Order: sequence, then structure tokens, then C-alpha cells
Amino acid sequence: MKLHNSLGPNPRIVRMFAIEKGIELDKVEVDLMSAENRQAPFLEKNPSGQLPALETDDGAFVSEVTAICEYLDEKSSGPSLVGSTPEERAEARMWTRKVDLNICEPMANGFRFAEGLELFKDRLICIPQAADDLKATAQSGLDKLDGWMAGRTFLCGDRMTMADVFLFGMLDFFASAGQPVRPELKNVSAWFAHMADRPSAEASLHEVAAAVGMRG
Amino acid sequence: MKLHNSLGPNPRIVRMFAIEKGIELDKVEVDLMSAENRQAPFLEKNPSGQLPALETDDGAFVSEVTAICEYLDEKSSGPSLVGSTPEERAEARMWTRKVDLNICEPMANGFRFAEGLELFKDRLICIPQAADDLKATAQSGLDKLDGWMAGRTFLCGDRMTMADVFLFGMLDFFASAGQPVRPELKNVSAWFAHMADRPSAEASLHEVAAAVGMRG
Repeated sequence: MKLHNSLGPNPRIVRMFAIEKGIELDKVEVDLMSAENRQAPFLEKNPSGQLPALETDDGAFVSEVTAICEYLDEKSSGPSLVGSTPEERAEARMWTRKVDLNICEPMANGFRFAEGLELFKDRLICIPQAADDLKATAQSGLDKLDGWMAGRTFLCGDRMTMADVFLFGMLDFFASAGQPVRPELKNVSAWFAHMADRPSAEASLHEVAAAVGMRG
Repeated sequence: MKLHNSLGPNPRIVRMFAIEKGIELDKVEVDLMSAENRQAPFLEKNPSGQLPALETDDGAFVSEVTAICEYLDEKSSGPSLVGSTPEERAEARMWTRKVDLNICEPMANGFRFAEGLELFKDRLICIPQAADDLKATAQSGLDKLDGWMAGRTFLCGDRMTMADVFLFGMLDFFASAGQPVRPELKNVSAWFAHMADRPSAEASLHEVAAAVGMRG
């Protein structure tokens, strides 16, 4: 297995998840800033051009962080970070998609269509006139989550799952790019601080990122 | 297990998936149009208010269609519609999230912020100024998918999976709500016709939907 790795929140989520699972991943660095991922030879192997991408031992490419995390979870031993029963897995997958659609995707698009516009304008359809409302949508999602998190340590109660690693990786990246975690969200802020304290949070930051002055 | 069921593309996806898996689901109808799902007692049981929601035998509520489909897949026998190996499951989950983020979510939001504005304006942050570009984003995602589908019967090659049922359910609903599948997308159109021919497609249409003149 080989992780095609880069700057940005998505690869960091996979690195953090792998560390939590005790998996040592071989990594190949791909230069996102120069769009190396949008050209041959990378594009020939991984037609979607997305990063991160996990190259499996049989040569297939898996992209999409949540699919990669579930794959790593299934391929390794130790406690599952998805769940040990169908009910637990359903709960973790439900929360992963809830935060994905209601918080992370509007937050990322809010960034891509504003602060990130220069980088993204030739890579996807950008909607600058929606940036502020997308950021407001993400904050509204966090408001609701704050109510949910009252009395909970993690999204799924006492159980740290893929959903926490995913949301933390996104929030931590965009906090340094104009969308901080608002301190008045007491429950989300406490959870965020708790996640940031895990050794995997620091250990998954990108070495190259520091060199170019960007949070990896 | 009990499916809290309603109009709309999401419950239909779960109904179609269940039929494909040979699962007979007990259903409770919830009136989406009058926002029954946004009030007690439903909201007390399912705080997110989302439909569909699967009530498990131990009383937990699972929302998010992809989490519900994976749960049904795990709880029933017969060939899996996710995959029988970690590699197959990764592929199906990857395609599910790809079409979710790149096609279905922009398509649904394009609808909510335009044709659906009256229904959704008090339920979520609507971004009418983004509606046209969101629809264009969905079509651009379908353009790319059309290239991918050349020579493929399903998203994951010869294997019909959750990703196909999910995408079909979304496209079929929005086709009747201003976002048709463009015939020039030859491969996507062929796949769509093929999916529409499956007995599960017709059988999963909502009985109540016909009564209110809306595709369920």
C-alpha cells in the first residue's frame, strides 16, 4: 500500500487516521500547488486526479478520504475506528456524512470560492457569490453540532471514530484559513481541543507544509 | 427495523436498495410537506429531523441514506451491494462519495435554492444566487462521469452497487424537477435506462407520491 500524499486537509485526515490505527504508510509526495496531480503520469494512474489516493497492493487507486479510512480500518488489526457492530458502524458513517455535507463541504467550498479562488478557479466551477453563505451554512452546522455534543466526548459518544478524525482535520485546516472554531461553541471547542491534544494530531501535520508556510 | 418514510429522492433510494437486497421493510409514513419531521414527537426520537430514518431493533435512529444502505447490507444475507472484499467495498464507497459530492449534492442544492425555494427557505440557509452554478457543477460532474462510464455497465464495472442505486435515485428525481439527464451523455444515459429497467426502480416509487402529483 502506498499513500499518494500532498498538502491540504484531506491527506492529513488519512495520515491522522493511519497513526490512530498504528499503520505505517509508505508515502509518495505529489505537488498539488503545481497541479502535478492534474497531469500525466499521475492522472493516468488515478483519472480523478484527486489527492490523497491510496494505491493498493494490487495496483488499484482508492480516492475519497472516507473510503480510504474505511479501507485502512478493514485492512489492519486493533480496535475499529468505524465500529465493531453494524449499529456502531452505521452511527459512525451517519455522523461522517452529516458533518461532511452540513459542515465540511460548505466550509471547503466557502474557502475555495474566496481565499482559495486563485488556486481553484481553473480547476473547478467556482461560485464566488456563494462563498459567504456557504461559510454561514458551515457555521450553522457547527451551531447544531454544538447542541448535539453536550455531554458527549466524541461524535459517537464515548467512541472516537472516523467521523471525529475527519471533522477535526477539516476544522483544523480551515481554522487557519479564515474560518476559526468560534469559542462560544463550548462543546465543539472542548471536543476540538481534546482532539488537538491527541499525539496523532501533531504527528500527522505535514513536513513539507511547514516549509512552504502552509498548514498541511 | 422500521423505515420512517416520506416523499423525496432519499427515502426512494433506501426503498430501492432494500428491494434489490430482498428486504421487506416495515414503513411509517411521515408527512414531509407539513414538516411533521421537524416537530415533536418525531424530532424527539430523531433530533436531526431527517428522512428517511431507519429505526433499529434497539431503538436507535440511523439517518443518511448511505449509512442506512450499508446497515441494511450488513444486516441481510445474499450478495453484498457494497462489496465482498475490502477492495470492492473501497471502490463502492469511493464512487458513492464521488457522485455524492460532485453530482448529487450540487444538483439537490441547485433544486432547493431554485424550484424548491418555497419549501426550503425556512428550513435551511438557501443560496438562490448559486442555483444556476450549482446545476452547472452537477452537469460538469455528469460530463466527467460519462467519460468514466465508457465500456462500464455500472459505476464499479460489472458490479451493481450502492453507488448506482444512490445516483440513480437522485438523477431520476431531479430529472422530473428541471435537471434532466442529457441524451448527449451517451454512457450515462445508457446506464440510466438500464437502471430504470430494473424491477426495483418501479417498485420503489412512492405510492403516496402519485397521490400528490410528485415523483416519490
